[in-house]
Amino acid sequence: MTTSVSTSTTTPRDRRRRETIAEILDAAWELARTEGIASLSLRQLAKRVGMRAPSLYSYFDSKHAIYDAMFRQGQEQLAEHMADVSEKRPVTRESLKAGVRLWFEFCLASPVRYQLMFQRSVPGFEPSPESYSLAQARLADAGRVLLDAGVTDPAALDLWTALLTGLTSQQISNDPTGDRWARLLDESVDMFLDHVGALPTQTGDAP
Amino acid sequence: MTTSVSTSTTTPRDRRRRETIAEILDAAWELARTEGIASLSLRQLAKRVGMRAPSLYSYFDSKHAIYDAMFRQGQEQLAEHMADVSEKRPVTRESLKAGVRLWFEFCLASPVRYQLMFQRSVPGFEPSPESYSLAQARLADAGRVLLDAGVTDPAALDLWTALLTGLTSQQISNDPTGDRWARLLDESVDMFLDHVGALPTQTGDAP
Repeated sequence: MTTSVSTSTTTPRDRRRRETIAEILDAAWELARTEGIASLSLRQLAKRVGMRAPSLYSYFDSKHAIYDAMFRQGQEQLAEHMADVSEKRPVTRESLKAGVRLWFEFCLASPVRYQLMFQRSVPGFEPSPESYSLAQARLADAGRVLLDAGVTDPAALDLWTALLTGLTSQQISNDPTGDRWARLLDESVDMFLDHVGALPTQTGDAP
Repeated sequence: MTTSVSTSTTTPRDRRRRETIAEILDAAWELARTEGIASLSLRQLAKRVGMRAPSLYSYFDSKHAIYDAMFRQGQEQLAEHMADVSEKRPVTRESLKAGVRLWFEFCLASPVRYQLMFQRSVPGFEPSPESYSLAQARLADAGRVLLDAGVTDPAALDLWTALLTGLTSQQISNDPTGDRWARLLDESVDMFLDHVGALPTQTGDAP
């Protein structure tokens, strides 16, 4: 309801502004892919969107504001990508493995997005509280999924994120076009669940 | 023996050259710490060592040659840092945990060094075969330690590096001055060893 109200008060000028901002962000991702996420040049970015560099400042206050918008966009894309699986109940070994594979696929699809969202790859950049709250919401989703799997220790969530970011970083850094670490995802979920004693596997010789 | 021969033929000019190269590398690390590893500027680097940028080219062919020397230096420092523990036999749970803590300490001491050595943080940079062979030698060390711990599956080494880089990256990215992931190191080693069935813990009720 609130969104339809705000849509109805959108002027053509607002719409053009939003389109320009989207175009600047697309160009920023494109540049990050070729130059590296930390090496975004406002001069090159302006050139790509057919502006002079100072004009960018009527859309973004600073280079960090652009990074912040990219971070927020990444978090929104992740939420959308994970929506089905983060709501899926009951949580089973299989649904956890499916979620992990989905997360991995999201990260591998854009290593620079991964570096911005999950590594401190841009010196001095910290997401704004508003953008960071989206990251915290994703972490809270993961926490709820683990809780529903029977994992109650908060430190286990840290171990979980370490394991998953480790597999992803190694894949991106050392085998970007292969599946050397992707092949270990299911096994890693099993290792973690066995360790925390959650969702025991059904075996023939179980006690 | 070979090293003492080459030392004896060192001229004062060679020595000055080596000292200048060491000074350039020190300045490059210093710059990387403030500007980020991917944002090394040759102009700023030259300024720090009191040269004009073109003069740097009599010491390094390119910016990537500087990154390569930094990568090599990092690998040499790591080898030295890990020397005692990578030779320690027999391998026990305790010696493995000590090695992991040592590695973690090395990584946390310089996040930019970690990013250069273990993450693809500099777009387009690949270490030279000579420098990369030092990284491979460290990985081979780790492989031998695990083998001597009774871990024979080569994929387990990939799981091991994923787990350790994951803990380290999360610590550096999300709690750089704390110990939120450092606290999980010992537990992670136990989780891994239990999973691969190596170095069983002595328990009172063991069969």
